Amino acid sequence: MPDTQPNTPLAALLADIRAITGDRGLLTEASDTAAYAEDWRKLYQGRTPAVIRPASTAELAAVVAACARAGVALVPQGGNTSMVAGATPSADGSELVLSLARMNQIRLVDPVDLTLTVEAGCTLKAAQDAAAEAGCLLPLSISSEGTAQIGGVLATNAGGNNTVRYGNARDLVLGLEVVLPDGQVWNGLRRLRKDNTGYCLRQLFVGSEGTLGVITAAVLKLVPRPVETVVALCAVGSAQAALDLFTRFNRHDPAAIQAFEYMSGAGMQFVLRHIPGATLPCAASGHYALVELATPRANAGLREALEDVLATAMEDELVIDAVIAESEAQRAALWKLREEHAEAQKREGASVKNDVSVPVSRVPELLARAAVAGEALIAGMRMVPFGHMGDGNIHLNFAQPPDMDAAVFLAQDHDIMDMVGAIVRDLDGSFSAEHGVGRLKPYMMPEWRGGAELDTMRRIKQALDPRGLMNPGKVLP
Amino acid sequence: MPDTQPNTPLAALLADIRAITGDRGLLTEASDTAAYAEDWRKLYQGRTPAVIRPASTAELAAVVAACARAGVALVPQGGNTSMVAGATPSADGSELVLSLARMNQIRLVDPVDLTLTVEAGCTLKAAQDAAAEAGCLLPLSISSEGTAQIGGVLATNAGGNNTVRYGNARDLVLGLEVVLPDGQVWNGLRRLRKDNTGYCLRQLFVGSEGTLGVITAAVLKLVPRPVETVVALCAVGSAQAALDLFTRFNRHDPAAIQAFEYMSGAGMQFVLRHIPGATLPCAASGHYALVELATPRANAGLREALEDVLATAMEDELVIDAVIAESEAQRAALWKLREEHAEAQKREGASVKNDVSVPVSRVPELLARAAVAGEALIAGMRMVPFGHMGDGNIHLNFAQPPDMDAAVFLAQDHDIMDMVGAIVRDLDGSFSAEHGVGRLKPYMMPEWRGGAELDTMRRIKQALDPRGLMNPGKVLP
Repeated sequence: MPDTQPNTPLAALLADIRAITGDRGLLTEASDTAAYAEDWRKLYQGRTPAVIRPASTAELAAVVAACARAGVALVPQGGNTSMVAGATPSADGSELVLSLARMNQIRLVDPVDLTLTVEAGCTLKAAQDAAAEAGCLLPLSISSEGTAQIGGVLATNAGGNNTVRYGNARDLVLGLEVVLPDGQVWNGLRRLRKDNTGYCLRQLFVGSEGTLGVITAAVLKLVPRPVETVVALCAVGSAQAALDLFTRFNRHDPAAIQAFEYMSGAGMQFVLRHIPGATLPCAASGHYALVELATPRANAGLREALEDVLATAMEDELVIDAVIAESEAQRAALWKLREEHAEAQKREGASVKNDVSVPVSRVPELLARAAVAGEALIAGMRMVPFGHMGDGNIHLNFAQPPDMDAAVFLAQDHDIMDMVGAIVRDLDGSFSAEHGVGRLKPYMMPEWRGGAELDTMRRIKQALDPRGLMNPGKVLP
Repeated sequence: MPDTQPNTPLAALLADIRAITGDRGLLTEASDTAAYAEDWRKLYQGRTPAVIRPASTAELAAVVAACARAGVALVPQGGNTSMVAGATPSADGSELVLSLARMNQIRLVDPVDLTLTVEAGCTLKAAQDAAAEAGCLLPLSISSEGTAQIGGVLATNAGGNNTVRYGNARDLVLGLEVVLPDGQVWNGLRRLRKDNTGYCLRQLFVGSEGTLGVITAAVLKLVPRPVETVVALCAVGSAQAALDLFTRFNRHDPAAIQAFEYMSGAGMQFVLRHIPGATLPCAASGHYALVELATPRANAGLREALEDVLATAMEDELVIDAVIAESEAQRAALWKLREEHAEAQKREGASVKNDVSVPVSRVPELLARAAVAGEALIAGMRMVPFGHMGDGNIHLNFAQPPDMDAAVFLAQDHDIMDMVGAIVRDLDGSFSAEHGVGRLKPYMMPEWRGGAELDTMRRIKQALDPRGLMNPGKVLP
């Protein structure tokens, strides 16, 4: 374990690093480093002797090489908004945090190529803004986008509300620049739509959560900005009806579906109860779908298309009631009902969260089985699922029974997660759809991804980072 | 080198394999194996003592394990349509061919999930047909689709005419089943749109050309079938005008562009000269763009949109003349002008082919510089570029000067490739956009992908296939 006293190996390493980055690039005071050592959800309290903030890829590569020589581990960190403590150093104080925050430049926006070349420390919001200034859309949106940085977004393969149309972060990456665990720089910042020259390294680093190297810059795909957007909130009779409605929109045109979100009646009640100003503009039901269509075509008749699909779905009794936003304010109000789900659940009391996915067609079965199994496990517990039905990705959360002590409820969190997990596994799903593995969930890997899959992951880790110095304790058990 | 005599190690291995696959699964007569030992372009003549044709993943895994124990190398082979001899065994007869042809079942088509689960030996055409029967489109089309098999299509990350809209083969893969070099089976046949549980192994195997394992089955994304398609051939004044036209269609709606192909005046003249029945239905020019729009929306007004974009482009003098197909027969005739480019070049005499890519915005510069450099290299040589302008992927071919001996011309093929390569490198492009590396181009890897990138690829190869038994001599030099 490193020691911050003078004349120790750590002190020598920090002196080397200071020579590389200058004073601005190295934080060692506890008051400066504390915020980097705790995760966003405050589930894990780490400790670090130093936070390194390089200003360039060259500086960062030199830092990684120095740490490799010294055998000291690094924890790459972007906006520190991980849901699974993926960017938090260990509690023993042996790991240094490597912050990308100062490497935040937009290098190039090309509206003909429809590409954005950006450094890892740029926030997602700033990258979106740069694309917008060029008349383009960076089609990735997550709730933490004001803080989350491109490097972390890619290292965790972030998802969000628009993946049903544009895919995950992974699907937007054309090129990467990565500093490897030995300090070598791989400049793979190619802006090519086609390139079959060897193994696809970029997709190996995307989603590897900083355990194989440090993403320092990326080339991302852009699309033209939508000029017409329509949003509807639909009360439906069942989760199956919501899925059937999604299929109808898919048959209309999957390239028009900007988002297709599911909400339960219980979750909606929480929002209406706890969120000031929230009102339900359609009939109440046990299930809701929020659909957003968008197109870059002018005069595309999108509103009419939405009305047509909804009218037929109402005739066929798939949809009970629906409301279409008539203004930007109404559109925001409809989205607020969805976006405040997490906050409303917090105000309702203790809850246990699951970020799971199943094949899209099996979402109704997932919800039906989880409702029964949940009630059998803890009578009165309330299932409040919501999320990205169009991706098969449901935040399958459970709120405590109203009359139960929160601590008593939370003591059963692993029982609840195991109950959900057993159903999801049976449906060939995933225990982490978009939040990743991080520090919280590596223990689940052997059961879910064991055998040949985990063996192959370990071989790759060993090949690229034989001494295990990149983000130790994350992803792999 | 193995020997087919009895009582040798090879004879013992073949007996073991016969016990696994049965007689139908093992070909050892030269008359049976010859077709598997030569590549499709007849550029490389290999030799093999046996072709193994397992009927199931279990059989295939047992074969791979037996060969691993015996230290004998395997060459996975699908439809054997590689453009770079990527599935051809070496000439020394030391490698066995592992054919996927008998593993050709469609396992599942799910029109709600919009997924197709298919075995590796199924032809691309049969997979397309299975999707079509379910009212869906498998959005990947290449000229060899009647012969090429899904396993090879994925192992080489095939491209084709529709990647501008749907991406490469890589972008269509949700899940894979792979037999690893030690005979372990990785069942990653997940049908999930979101799954962040460790390293993205599927994208490592896609495009690895059989050097890391054998793809035995896959889950592919489908889309709803287009119901409206319009095609136009446009005579344009320059490559830049073709690019500007592409940008206008992108601004209209990139999700409507099914294909955007470029052809040169020289290439078009070859087609008109050599292909029976080929006629030019628009004004002649030095440059042409073929654009296809498609949508699953009924009554989408696509034809009107196409006319609007073209009318404005003619007003602005981007487009000289244009013709829109009025029938399926006319549509086929327009596409024939593009698809017969390779055949017409063959009939015109000797040619040197380059499958390169650059950022989309730099295609005009690529063509302008290559025209000048080509003439400087061999006076009278004719540049006949064509291909996927919307992807920045140009087949930058050169035809011999009419009065030059073909052999004299072809003796300079590496000079021509080097001339093109230097320009492509300068434009941050790729020496192989869609055809891969195979046996023909590994020598180019150190110069183009050397340093940290090739080092990382080699580490991965060593980690997964330490004895180098999977498709030796391909991809990596």
